[in-house]
Formats: sequence, C-alpha cells, structure tokens
Amino acid sequence: MLAHKQFIVNNMLPDTQNKADSRNISINKVGIKDIKHPLIFVDRNGGEQLSVGTWQMTVGLSADVKGTHMSRFIEILNQTTPKFSTENFHTITQTVLEKLEATSAQIEVRFPIFVKKIAPASKVESLLDYDAILISTIESGVITTTLKVVVAVTSLCPCSKSISEYGAHNQRSHITIQAVAGDTLYFEDLIDLTEKSASCQLYAILKREDEKFVTEYAYDNPAFVEDLVRDIAIELKNHTAIRSYILESENFESIHNHSAYALIEG
Amino acid sequence: MLAHKQFIVNNMLPDTQNKADSRNISINKVGIKDIKHPLIFVDRNGGEQLSVGTWQMTVGLSADVKGTHMSRFIEILNQTTPKFSTENFHTITQTVLEKLEATSAQIEVRFPIFVKKIAPASKVESLLDYDAILISTIESGVITTTLKVVVAVTSLCPCSKSISEYGAHNQRSHITIQAVAGDTLYFEDLIDLTEKSASCQLYAILKREDEKFVTEYAYDNPAFVEDLVRDIAIELKNHTAIRSYILESENFESIHNHSAYALIEG
Amino acid sequence: MLAHKQFIVNNMLPDTQNKADSRNISINKVGIKDIKHPLIFVDRNGGEQLSVGTWQMTVGLSADVKGTHMSRFIEILNQTTPKFSTENFHTITQTVLEKLEATSAQIEVRFPIFVKKIAPASKVESLLDYDAILISTIESGVITTTLKVVVAVTSLCPCSKSISEYGAHNQRSHITIQAVAGDTLYFEDLIDLTEKSASCQLYAILKREDEKFVTEYAYDNPAFVEDLVRDIAIELKNHTAIRSYILESENFESIHNHSAYALIEG
Amino acid sequence: MLAHKQFIVNNMLPDTQNKADSRNISINKVGIKDIKHPLIFVDRNGGEQLSVGTWQMTVGLSADVKGTHMSRFIEILNQTTPKFSTENFHTITQTVLEKLEATSAQIEVRFPIFVKKIAPASKVESLLDYDAILISTIESGVITTTLKVVVAVTSLCPCSKSISEYGAHNQRSHITIQAVAGDTLYFEDLIDLTEKSASCQLYAILKREDEKFVTEYAYDNPAFVEDLVRDIAIELKNHTAIRSYILESENFESIHNHSAYALIEG
Repeated sequence: MLAHKQFIVNNMLPDTQNKADSRNISINKVGIKDIKHPLIFVDRNGGEQLSVGTWQMTVGLSADVKGTHMSRFIEILNQTTPKFSTENFHTITQTVLEKLEATSAQIEVRFPIFVKKIAPASKVESLLDYDAILISTIESGVITTTLKVVVAVTSLCPCSKSISEYGAHNQRSHITIQAVAGDTLYFEDLIDLTEKSASCQLYAILKREDEKFVTEYAYDNPAFVEDLVRDIAIELKNHTAIRSYILESENFESIHNHSAYALIEG
Repeated sequence: MLAHKQFIVNNMLPDTQNKADSRNISINKVGIKDIKHPLIFVDRNGGEQLSVGTWQMTVGLSADVKGTHMSRFIEILNQTTPKFSTENFHTITQTVLEKLEATSAQIEVRFPIFVKKIAPASKVESLLDYDAILISTIESGVITTTLKVVVAVTSLCPCSKSISEYGAHNQRSHITIQAVAGDTLYFEDLIDLTEKSASCQLYAILKREDEKFVTEYAYDNPAFVEDLVRDIAIELKNHTAIRSYILESENFESIHNHSAYALIEG
Repeated sequence: MLAHKQFIVNNMLPDTQNKADSRNISINKVGIKDIKHPLIFVDRNGGEQLSVGTWQMTVGLSADVKGTHMSRFIEILNQTTPKFSTENFHTITQTVLEKLEATSAQIEVRFPIFVKKIAPASKVESLLDYDAILISTIESGVITTTLKVVVAVTSLCPCSKSISEYGAHNQRSHITIQAVAGDTLYFEDLIDLTEKSASCQLYAILKREDEKFVTEYAYDNPAFVEDLVRDIAIELKNHTAIRSYILESENFESIHNHSAYALIEG
Repeated sequence: MLAHKQFIVNNMLPDTQNKADSRNISINKVGIKDIKHPLIFVDRNGGEQLSVGTWQMTVGLSADVKGTHMSRFIEILNQTTPKFSTENFHTITQTVLEKLEATSAQIEVRFPIFVKKIAPASKVESLLDYDAILISTIESGVITTTLKVVVAVTSLCPCSKSISEYGAHNQRSHITIQAVAGDTLYFEDLIDLTEKSASCQLYAILKREDEKFVTEYAYDNPAFVEDLVRDIAIELKNHTAIRSYILESENFESIHNHSAYALIEG
C-alpha cells in the first residue's frame, strides 16, 4: 500500500475535491439526494406544520472545479430545523449558493402537508394529506420557485353514467400540478382549484349523511380525464401567480387494472 | 497491508465461508434476494408464459457452518431458463438443497401472470395481469408449496348505494390470497373464486356495451370489505387443494385518501 | 331507482354495518390502512419528535356482526394529535377497542425517527433517520407491543478483503429487527446493538478525518451477512426486554445487482 | 333515474367522447398508463428477449374534440404480442396515430433487459438485468426515439482511498442515461460506455478469483460522482447516434444513509 499512497497525518488530509479538472465539462447539478430531515412548513394560514422532508440539494459545478463539498449541504440542514413557507423557501437555496461558493443552486424537498377539511353535511373536521414538493433554483442570479402537489380526488365517468340504467364507475384520481410561481403562490391555492373541478373532493372522515352527499355530488358532476385537465387548466391560466404549469391526471379506473391519463402543459 | 493478510496466489484463494463457526447460532435463511431473471411459467391450461421474475433463494445454515455459497444459487438460475408450473416448482428448491448441501431451502419468485379475459357483452378478448408469487420450502424433508396472488377487482359500497338517491361509490380493490397447497393448486383457481365474489371483475378492453354491463353488474352486487373477505373465505374453505390461507382485501376508497382493509386467516 | 331502495330521510339513513351476518365467519382484522396523520413520538431520552405516520388501525369482528365503523378509527386520530412512546402506545389501541366496541384491536404505525449522531473524529453532530414501525395488539385481553426498525449500516466483505491484495467491497446494508417487547423497549436499544455489530455505523455528516476513520474502521471489522445476523442475534438474546424477534440483513452488494440476505428468528 | 337520462337501447349507446368541446383547450397527452403487457424485444445482437412491459400510450387531442378512445390503445397491444427493436419501435407509435386518428402520439414502455456477462477471471457466464425505457413520439410528422436505461455499477470513493491507510468506501451506483437517438442506437451501446467509465461493472456470478479481480479493479479505478458523469458525458458526446442526453449518477453511499448525486444535460 505504500506504493499506492503517501503517509498521511490527520490534519493534513489531502482535499481531493478542491483540485482542478481538465476534462472541460461543467456539471448542471451535483450534491446529495434522498436525505430525510425534519422541517417546519408555514402554510397559507400561517400555521406551522412539523413534518419530515426528503431533500435533494445540488449546485452547478463549473468545468474547472473537480468536486463539490457534500458535507456542507447537510450542515445547512443540521444548523437549525429548516422553517419555511413557499414564499421564503428560496432563502435556503441562497444559503446553499453562498456556503458552497457556487453560481447556481437547486433544492427540492418532498413532504406531506395537511389541510383541515369539514365534512359537507355533518361538518365533522378531519385532516387530509397531500404530497407536496417545493423546488427552488437560483441560476444566473434568477430565483425560481416551483410548487408541485398531488391532489387525490374522486372522478366519475360520464360515459358509464350515460350508458347505464343505474350506477356509474368512479375511482380515486391523482391530479398532479407543477406550477412555476410568478408571485406568492400557496399549495392550498392549487388544492382549492383542483378540488372544485373534480367530480368530488375527498375527506378523511365522512359520516353517513356525508357519504350520501359525496356519492350524489359525484354522480351529479361526472368528468372524463380530459374534462378534469381542461377544467383545471382554465383555473391555472386564470391564476395570476402562476407563470407556467404542467398538469396531469391519473385515474385509477375501477373497471380496469390500468389508469386513464392526461397531461396539459401551459 | 502485509500486516493485514498473507500473500495470496490466485489458485489458492482462501475459502472463508467454509470455516467453522463458534457462535453456536443457526440461521433460518441465508442466500440472495431481489435478483431478476427470466422464467417460463406453465399455466393451468398448459400455456407457456415467458416472463421475468424477482427471485429470493435461501437455505438454512446449521450453527457450525460459517457461511453459504452465494454464487451457486445464481448458477442454478443461469444453467437453463427456469421453467415451472405450480405443480413442479419444488424441483428447483430440491436442486438448491442439493447444490448448496443444505438441509432446508426456500425459494420465492414474484412475476406477472396473464389471463385472457372475454368482455361480457362484446366478447372482445384481452389480457389481464396479476402479480403472482410462488413460494416453495423444504424443511426436514417436507416440501411445501405456497401460492400468493393479487387480484384487482371492483368493489361497490352497499352503504353508499343504500343511503344515496342515485349512484354509489366504487373503486379498485386488491384481493391478496396466500394459500398453502395441499394438492395441485393453480393461480387461476384463486383468481376465479376471487373474481366471482367481487362486485365486478376487471378487463383490459371494455367496449361501450361492456362498460354498461360492468357498471350495472357492480351496482347490482355491492360488497363491503367485510363481505369480500367473508365470501372469498367460504370459497377458500371449500377448495379441496387449499390447506390454509391468509386473505386480505384492500379497497382504495374513491371517497377517501386511505384504504378500507380486512384480513382473514383460515 | 325506486325499485332499488326505499325513500330515505336524511336523519333516518339505514345503518347497514350494524345488521347481523349469517355467514358465520369471523374476521381477524378489519379497519383502515395507509392513512397519513401527524404524530408526536417521545423517544428514549424523553425528546418529542414531531413526525407524520402511516397508520393501519383494525379490530377483530365476530362472526355475527356485519361490519365495523370505519370513521371511528379516524376520529380517534383527529381528536388530538397522537402522542406516544413505545411504553404507552398501547393506550391508543385500548381507545380503539373501546370506541369500536371490539374484543381485539391492532394498530401499526410507520414513521421516521431521528437519532443525533456524533462524528467519530471531528465530533460534528448530525441527525440520522431510521424507519420505525410500532405495532400494538390487544387479543383476549393481552396487550402486546412490537417494535420494528430498519437500521442502515456499512457491511464490508471478509472474503473480498482476504483474497484481494488491496481494497474490499463494502456497501449499505439494511438490518431489520422486529422485536416483541417483554418489558420497556426502545427503538434506540435496537439501533445501538445493531450499529455496534456492523462493519461500521452511518452518519449524515462526515468531515475528512471522519471519512478516514469510518473507512479504516469498516476495513478492520469485516462481516458476512451471516456474521451480521449471528452477532446481532446474540445481542437480541441477551436483551432482557425482548421476548422474541425476527432479524433480517439485506446487503445491497456493491459488486452485484442483487442483495445478500439472511434471517434469524429467535 | 328517468329524470337523469333517457331510455337507452343497447345498440344505440351514446358516444360521449365523440362530442365537440367548447373549452378551447388542447391536451398534450391523453390515453392509458401503467398497463402491463407481454412483449418481445429484439436486442443489438438480434436476440429475442421475451419480457413484460409497463406501457403508457397517449395521443394529443385538439381543442375541439371532447375525448379519445381509450380501448383502441389496448386493442393495438392485444392484436399480436408487440415485437420491436429500438430501431423499429416507432412503427407502433404510427399505428397508434392512425387508429386513434390523431396528429401526435407518444408511447413509453418500461421493461427489464438482460445482457450476458462473462466473469473477468473465471469466464463464467451469467445474465445481468437493466431497467430499460423506450420512448417514441410523433409530433407534426417528426418521429423521435428516446432510450432511457439504468445501469448499476460500482463506484469507489477517491477521497476515502486517498486519506485512509487501507480500504476505501465503495457502493452500488445507478447511472441513468436518457438519450435522444439521431441514428440507430442500442441500449447495449449506452450500457457499454457506462460500464467502462465506472470504478467497476457488475456481474450476477463472481467466483472467488473474480471477486479478487473486481475488488482490486475498483480500488485501482476510484471515481467521484462528478468523475462518473464527466467521463460518461465525454462518451455520450462522442457517440454519433446520440442527438442529446440527460445523464444522472446516484451513488448509494455505503457510509451515509443518503445518495451522492450528479446530473449533466448535453
């Protein structure tokens, strides 16, 4: 092994990552992925939701630098529990940019958020969960914040309703919206406009009178996967804080073992 | 490094696994997991389904043996493409037992199987997929074959139907049956008895007249998660080739973001 | 539709689940699955970890009762944020038993827990995450608490070390322990005894002097998958608060695209 | 129900999807997702690999058309087992375009492929699996074929090697390449150029002399995540059949519970 490396004293460990690189290839993103860390999310109402996020933190690396400093990303997470809203999340990205001495930085964090729902008839309250992803990038000094959320809803098939003497197949659908914010934008904004366009919204607790309500409501509001994405696209277009979006609906068809799917980019 | 190990010549590599072990602890299962390998599955009709399986192959290890020989498991897979029915799958386990010089052996392989379904009104044919797991163990000379299959079906809620003026919430449900075979047992047996107990079975292709049929059929056959497992449990009890079973139903409720769930062991 | 059901007034909705059942089949578990809800976990040090759990809540159903009351499970979660340690988690199961008027009840909740780790050389602090599952059952009046935890560690192959002139393949391994508690048992107990048996434990932050430490430590402590489960099994046997256990190690081999795997039940 | 819809005769079922739509919003993609169906893949050597794919099949929908015909996609799969190479896969997309009377169409299919590997010292043969995704789009008459493949390899950390007296942490890494083909391009091309750039390639079967070889080979070829993506990017740039690419490396660090990650777009 003496042939393989020189003797090393503990305080003189070579810093391999700081060496120059001769391949002349810049790297768009380099850093850490799939690290779990607690967080405090400040929602639209100012409420603090304590949750656990799965983080991806990266920086751009110019062609002449050999490597980045992986431990610094995690030091940022460990200094104090990250606390952020969709409005100020970019400050963590700015910290990454500075501590990593980079010219571009990207953070993505996925975590569950909860909204208090009130059952339509009984008025019983319960929490409903949504998968939220918050993405912040700084490239050439430009800060971009992107919100991605999966909203589970009921979809009821208009064709099945129209051709059947009674009943209509319905199922859980996942509406996924990825929206680039042009102004302050909340996950709850995306959730609200999605739930009002679906055949029916979901609730964790439904008493019998609520179950009657949602069953009939869905039957009165049938929607194809095409209708779902078109109706929600109109809402997204009209929302002044959304610069651009990718909108998907995946309906886990109750009569098939596959999904109906649609996507609109706008 | 000279202090760490002696000089090794290539054809005298030490066989660390063959050494004795002094901890006096036997190991129930040791081997390989999550290896993908092609297979040929012979179904109930004698048809050959070419598929790819995810395999787990293990042996029991007595307290005095240090380790098993991992590469031998994979050599068995690579000698010739494994071809088996539920009836003769245990021959692969016997091969493992012999080649590994073990007294117990266990194989689990998960793969998709397909059944040709005929649409109820149009009679159009299409393939439907099912997740199948085949488990074979040899312990103290006793061969046991266990079949596990996930059957996706439609469930329609009797409560929703009974309390609503029109409509009824329905959804895709996963019925999972794990059955220890007492005699020749086919995945298709488990699929058949499950599909006739559900609110409706699924199809890949449904023309409009079929969609009318399945919508009305499901509405005419509502079933709680409790009904599903009870009705299927009766079928499983009456099947002469089933020695014991674990039966689960998970209904991906279309009105909630969680599942209704039930389990019966028999 | 008048042919299908009688006229219903809103406060007289039929309670279908309360009807008698004539099939004479009891159900081992029925309830809800995969519901996400916030929780407060009190760890071994008395620290409160705010997290989000994925819950399964079920009761046993006797043969003569048609159905359970799904909404009551979720009402228990929504009354106040569930707060529990491994010691008092069973009180939630007791609440389920009472509110559901059942004779047996089972709760499983999966959530990430964090332990503060101190890097071996630099002494830098960082949080490491572990997947924890807490299971509580009450059957025939007997309360059983089971802890399940996945501990990620480094494993370094003794064979690779012994036959190679330099280096040794190593990888991340998942040690999964499911332990039935006979007395007060903490997740951190299971984590501690696992980490000391591995080739090396993991850390979120490692400075260069720490990376040197863990690299050499792992090289000095090689362990086959067989060694890992045997060494940990000895620790589990000697732990007075553990009544029985299932112990697995899955090594995501760095030289293969499959895992080495071992299991001991004790 | 008579108030809800008119009487329907079976051969006069209304075709809801064929109606006009007044919302004036075109849909980028609409169709089916996550359907499993058998396939025959013709590899670079002309070998036929029988496998099972997970398919997504969609068309673009102009603003004035209400809906697409979901069952036609699946009819295409069920007419005859789809058989294709990367070179002629687009013919299926053309069939979709015609049968669905669409102006744009997209197909994605994910399936495992196998390559026969020869162990470096013993020359033992075994199959290694790779996740392959084949994407074909036709937009405005332009056919585009994109190959995506995940290649699992060994990465060995140069920093760990350089600062440690002995040993070096190494792990399994997933290199994911998504390449738009400018000419005939094979999955095996992408696999070859990736495996020669890694610290070492993987094999299903390694005898002891092979394990010695790969251990030492990896130790002699350390590579940071940055090195992996840069070295592979050079190969991708020089490959004449690749028009553009997205290249990712995720290293499942053996000393951490998170991944090192890098991405280059070119």
